[in-house]
Amino acid sequence: MPGVSGVNGSTAYGDATVNGLLKKESKPSAPPQTSKDEIQLVLQSFRLLIADLCQQFGMGHPGGAIGMAAIGVALWKYAMRYAPHQPDWFNRDRFVLSNGHACLFQYTNLYLSGYKAMTWEQLLSYHSERPDSLCPGHPEIEHEGIEVTTGPLGQGIANAVGLAMASKHLAATFNRPGHEVVSNHTWCMIGDACQQEGLGNEAFSYAGHLKLNNLTVIYDNNQITCDGSVDLTNTEDVNKKMEAYGWEIVDVEDGVNDVEAIVAALEKARDPNREKPLFINVRTIIGVGSAVAGKAVSHGAPLGQENVKEMKRQYDWDTEKIFHIPEKVKKFYENLPSRGEQYVKEWNDAVSAYTKEYPDLAATFKDRMAGTLPSDWESMIPTSFPSEPTPSRRSNNLVMAQMLAEIPTFMVGTADLTPSVNLTYKDYEIFNPPSLKPISGAQGSYKGRYIHYGIREHAMAAIANGLAAYSPRTIIPITSSFFMFYLYAAPAVRMGALQKLKVIHVATHDSIGAGEDGPTHQPVELAALYRAMPNMEYIRPGDSEEVAGAWKAAIEYEDGPTMISVSRHALPQLQGLTKRDGVAKGAYVLQEEKHADVTVMAVGAELSFAVNVAKELSTKSIKARVVSFPSHKLFRDQPIEYQRQVLRRNEGIPAVVIEPYVSLGFERWADAGINMKSFGHSLPGKYIYQHFGYTTERMAKSIEGYLRDWKSGKVGRGEWVEL
Amino acid sequence: MPGVSGVNGSTAYGDATVNGLLKKESKPSAPPQTSKDEIQLVLQSFRLLIADLCQQFGMGHPGGAIGMAAIGVALWKYAMRYAPHQPDWFNRDRFVLSNGHACLFQYTNLYLSGYKAMTWEQLLSYHSERPDSLCPGHPEIEHEGIEVTTGPLGQGIANAVGLAMASKHLAATFNRPGHEVVSNHTWCMIGDACQQEGLGNEAFSYAGHLKLNNLTVIYDNNQITCDGSVDLTNTEDVNKKMEAYGWEIVDVEDGVNDVEAIVAALEKARDPNREKPLFINVRTIIGVGSAVAGKAVSHGAPLGQENVKEMKRQYDWDTEKIFHIPEKVKKFYENLPSRGEQYVKEWNDAVSAYTKEYPDLAATFKDRMAGTLPSDWESMIPTSFPSEPTPSRRSNNLVMAQMLAEIPTFMVGTADLTPSVNLTYKDYEIFNPPSLKPISGAQGSYKGRYIHYGIREHAMAAIANGLAAYSPRTIIPITSSFFMFYLYAAPAVRMGALQKLKVIHVATHDSIGAGEDGPTHQPVELAALYRAMPNMEYIRPGDSEEVAGAWKAAIEYEDGPTMISVSRHALPQLQGLTKRDGVAKGAYVLQEEKHADVTVMAVGAELSFAVNVAKELSTKSIKARVVSFPSHKLFRDQPIEYQRQVLRRNEGIPAVVIEPYVSLGFERWADAGINMKSFGHSLPGKYIYQHFGYTTERMAKSIEGYLRDWKSGKVGRGEWVEL
Repeated sequence: MPGVSGVNGSTAYGDATVNGLLKKESKPSAPPQTSKDEIQLVLQSFRLLIADLCQQFGMGHPGGAIGMAAIGVALWKYAMRYAPHQPDWFNRDRFVLSNGHACLFQYTNLYLSGYKAMTWEQLLSYHSERPDSLCPGHPEIEHEGIEVTTGPLGQGIANAVGLAMASKHLAATFNRPGHEVVSNHTWCMIGDACQQEGLGNEAFSYAGHLKLNNLTVIYDNNQITCDGSVDLTNTEDVNKKMEAYGWEIVDVEDGVNDVEAIVAALEKARDPNREKPLFINVRTIIGVGSAVAGKAVSHGAPLGQENVKEMKRQYDWDTEKIFHIPEKVKKFYENLPSRGEQYVKEWNDAVSAYTKEYPDLAATFKDRMAGTLPSDWESMIPTSFPSEPTPSRRSNNLVMAQMLAEIPTFMVGTADLTPSVNLTYKDYEIFNPPSLKPISGAQGSYKGRYIHYGIREHAMAAIANGLAAYSPRTIIPITSSFFMFYLYAAPAVRMGALQKLKVIHVATHDSIGAGEDGPTHQPVELAALYRAMPNMEYIRPGDSEEVAGAWKAAIEYEDGPTMISVSRHALPQLQGLTKRDGVAKGAYVLQEEKHADVTVMAVGAELSFAVNVAKELSTKSIKARVVSFPSHKLFRDQPIEYQRQVLRRNEGIPAVVIEPYVSLGFERWADAGINMKSFGHSLPGKYIYQHFGYTTERMAKSIEGYLRDWKSGKVGRGEWVEL
Repeated sequence: MPGVSGVNGSTAYGDATVNGLLKKESKPSAPPQTSKDEIQLVLQSFRLLIADLCQQFGMGHPGGAIGMAAIGVALWKYAMRYAPHQPDWFNRDRFVLSNGHACLFQYTNLYLSGYKAMTWEQLLSYHSERPDSLCPGHPEIEHEGIEVTTGPLGQGIANAVGLAMASKHLAATFNRPGHEVVSNHTWCMIGDACQQEGLGNEAFSYAGHLKLNNLTVIYDNNQITCDGSVDLTNTEDVNKKMEAYGWEIVDVEDGVNDVEAIVAALEKARDPNREKPLFINVRTIIGVGSAVAGKAVSHGAPLGQENVKEMKRQYDWDTEKIFHIPEKVKKFYENLPSRGEQYVKEWNDAVSAYTKEYPDLAATFKDRMAGTLPSDWESMIPTSFPSEPTPSRRSNNLVMAQMLAEIPTFMVGTADLTPSVNLTYKDYEIFNPPSLKPISGAQGSYKGRYIHYGIREHAMAAIANGLAAYSPRTIIPITSSFFMFYLYAAPAVRMGALQKLKVIHVATHDSIGAGEDGPTHQPVELAALYRAMPNMEYIRPGDSEEVAGAWKAAIEYEDGPTMISVSRHALPQLQGLTKRDGVAKGAYVLQEEKHADVTVMAVGAELSFAVNVAKELSTKSIKARVVSFPSHKLFRDQPIEYQRQVLRRNEGIPAVVIEPYVSLGFERWADAGINMKSFGHSLPGKYIYQHFGYTTERMAKSIEGYLRDWKSGKVGRGEWVEL
């Protein structure tokens, strides 16, 4: 074939008749006690509601949600345990819509099952001009009944793995024979796309390894993506792959109508004898029932008024009625709120019995549910540190060793860099299935709080989001890797920031000083991303005292993730100069000088450079004050009076920053910079600073020259100078 | 087991005896014509050389390279076709070391096989203080015999897929019966880590789909990573997974000594009847022969002097000799340079015969090898555009349709967003295996230049690096996706920038104006990353004319990738104001005003806002000049005179930038900004700008107020103001 003609992006070949389902005799079925006709009415009603909702403003993603109608019935009416009147009930099942563009699927099911905030008016606000709509274009964690924000593909799978891990861990920690206070299941819907993303595969592989039998992934296998039929780009054997990852597979042949088969598959999820996560491969048809059924065009645009009318005609519905839900359908869903109340009541009774039997444990459990840290946590941070040069990655351990060992809220993990990130602690236990007997003998249990994520940085960060989203501060996940690899993890770190999730990321090897590994491992531009990211608290502490300040800030911060960025190599301890409370303000004066000629600022691994340079400048009769600048965000959040007090640029004192990153972002706070203008270089630590001119002498000389230009007016005010 | 004690990062459990190999009787073997003893001597020599090289400066990654000794012999001595005297021979086999930390494996083999630049002195420079070392901590593309820079895990796999695709495409395009001028094979070494990375899995899945039978991945299966034995974090069935991805599997049981078996496996690669990429699962032992064999500690640190001596003792070598290569071993490798000359000679003869038979095709082939674009390429860009509001993603098509259709150098691809990115062209043909018959009927061939990458953004960008690295400008890959998803692809985009590869990334939906998809799809901080990234030319054009300028800049830029960042929604065409040549300078004056009170700058999708605001300000007797600012990098590269001429801040005119991204980075060029301070919001395009205050009236009012503060001195010079 000579290719497909057609320009300007219309997909000329998205009209696959997939899975053979369109041709198949429709075989409606129903779970016990519900007539097949009734189920069919419910499915029709759901599909038409979705079609009408997308039609109203001429926008939206109808196809997927329509194809998943029967899955929705099976989940909300039958399989899932939740309480519409108490959406944050601790032991509820968690549902994640990883194919978040199909959000109407979730919104409509929330409405039908009686979630209070999701009023009829709210449901109709999908794609309206209402800024307070509970129906944004992708599900958002802020809203009732939504566990995590999804949209960027694959994230939801890893979030669900984190949610299931949280549940496993809490169950292992708190449950006692006959007292299952944590027993919820995690359900995750995915589409063809999540399944192709690398992130999804990292998460699948790790969940299989962990034997998370409390996790079920439901694959909306409609074989259509934006570009057309899936086999245009992907011909892998999905079930075989999932088996290789260690999952149990169940196939559902007719996912369009066979609610009974879907329910049967979902019910396997709670079989106590199962040892693996469950992958339910449900064949569906995108936009089923409409004229564009099975076609890519039904994915991201309304079906068209005539198409919707024709759907109604075929269903023998009144073609003029829109947004119609028959009484029988309302009746079908009406038991769900009271069923939810019953679930909560039973659980409350169970917790009461548990409290009687295990009063101490129950008290701890309640603290964890409430997200309370021990009131004396801050006292666990040492008040002083050894004076010898210390890599700040090691300072992390000095600061956190006691807290990590004693406060069970923290779950620490690394993407295969245990020997490098220094976050192990006394008698740490590995989070792993108890049945696993690794060759190395390093056996773990679900009670373990140290997580070996494998070489899966992106999944690590996305799973951490799931751990944090389980319930606020019940688990505070800590991830760790080289700073450079937080570029792999960045989309998930961003999702944590967007959701204001309390996750702490520890990024080591954050400087060209990391040395011989070379430019692939030397960050020079990455800090710009995290300094720009809303809600993200990015901190580069300069010695152990500042590391203490960084952790304190991280633990106290409630509006998003923190990234603590530390060095591989040993740093001088600036004792008597650095202050943990200074870190909390983002920047602070390290050495004041009343009649200063210049402010020299530095950051993190290179903080001591500023002190050395100031000393060198003093030999040339240049008076330099020194500022430590560990966090842009924290400093940005300070009142302008404090900012001026630290910078004193309003007094006409120019500020020069020393940081071997590109300058981008520091132009706001300084007038000139000794920054990187290129990627790094593979040289051992002691040589690389020299190679790029970060010697005290060279820097002092540059600043001296700059001050001449400043005074002579050769340099314009507000004109950034690269030194 | 109650967990593993030990603090501060020492891996207490990395001492697995894996694969059972350590206990197995060593079964040395050899390919024909080489005695087993001779092979054993070669292997010993190689291992000891690696051990000594890491020992000399007390740094390095010895374990992997030592374990892979036999694979190296099989590749360089037997399987690979290359020419040490002409490292850039066009039809050479490409070798990619995806586990780049094992770089000594490659350096040593380059030395042994006679690459001229890799002198003995250079080999000894690994981890030395020499900035001109050809042996950096990870392989770097700048150096002879290195095809791509690797290090960040998984990248190499995707690069290799790109290299193999390039070869397939060129072969399909240029080869004729009996005339195989492109016939090279691509070999990729991976370790356990690459195999776990999501990126690796995306690339595996896609390569299986593409049936790349000219690609072989060799898996150094030593079952050890930094944290210990692989089964601590990964228990998937790798062979089964690879089969599911569509690969052919060959197992080698004794990869430590059985060179013969490895050669036999590698020779399968060139079997013309094979239809799949080949995955060779080679069981090896990390650090084999040493006291830390099979242990994680042998991965990233020298073995220790005593250990190395003990190795030598066991091999019956002189324990005092270091860096010793016996004569027999030198002899073993000495035929390789002349063999390489013979390969090149035969190929030159083949090209001569081909040129006689197909003179026109051969001329084109030579142009492509030389990386020459048709001299009239610029004339293919329209000189004018329609005046009606146009989404700049559509402008891409207006600008590039002819060039894409007529210049075969371009290979365009998308991560499943064909209907959104507008990069199809007349009679475009899909790159897909000819044997594939997709349900949708959209059949392709290897001659196709339109690549459906699937929902694999990261692999797309990394594969594009491979396409570009095949030979300079022989293929210019163009990738495309939503801007936000270039965060998924960022690690690969960075690798392209680091390697100065000519790749063009087209990022659409680059503004909050994209609307209802909400904050997960609205970039506000991502531009900071690409503006900070060295070598990266990030451009946000504001209308079709500027899009023309962006593509012109991209095609002319030879020092790295370009990202063209465009809108989803229709933008006013500022005809008579915008200039394509202005884009080339990064920023330029759109509307001058001699006695200006303020400069209003804007960017890309919101460029017209500045024009509107200036008009509104004029009604308040405020004289505003307008600057378009499509690219930080291009403007940064201009002489300061030009910068001052555009900005006129040195004349005391304050500059205000309008861009609904966070301000980070613009503080260098402006004094105040109307920027985002948070993530976006799910609202249709027409409402979202209003929601965040981007109305002409509100912005003009803010600037008016700011100018009052500026004049009164309430705002300090050099003090950034958020409006």
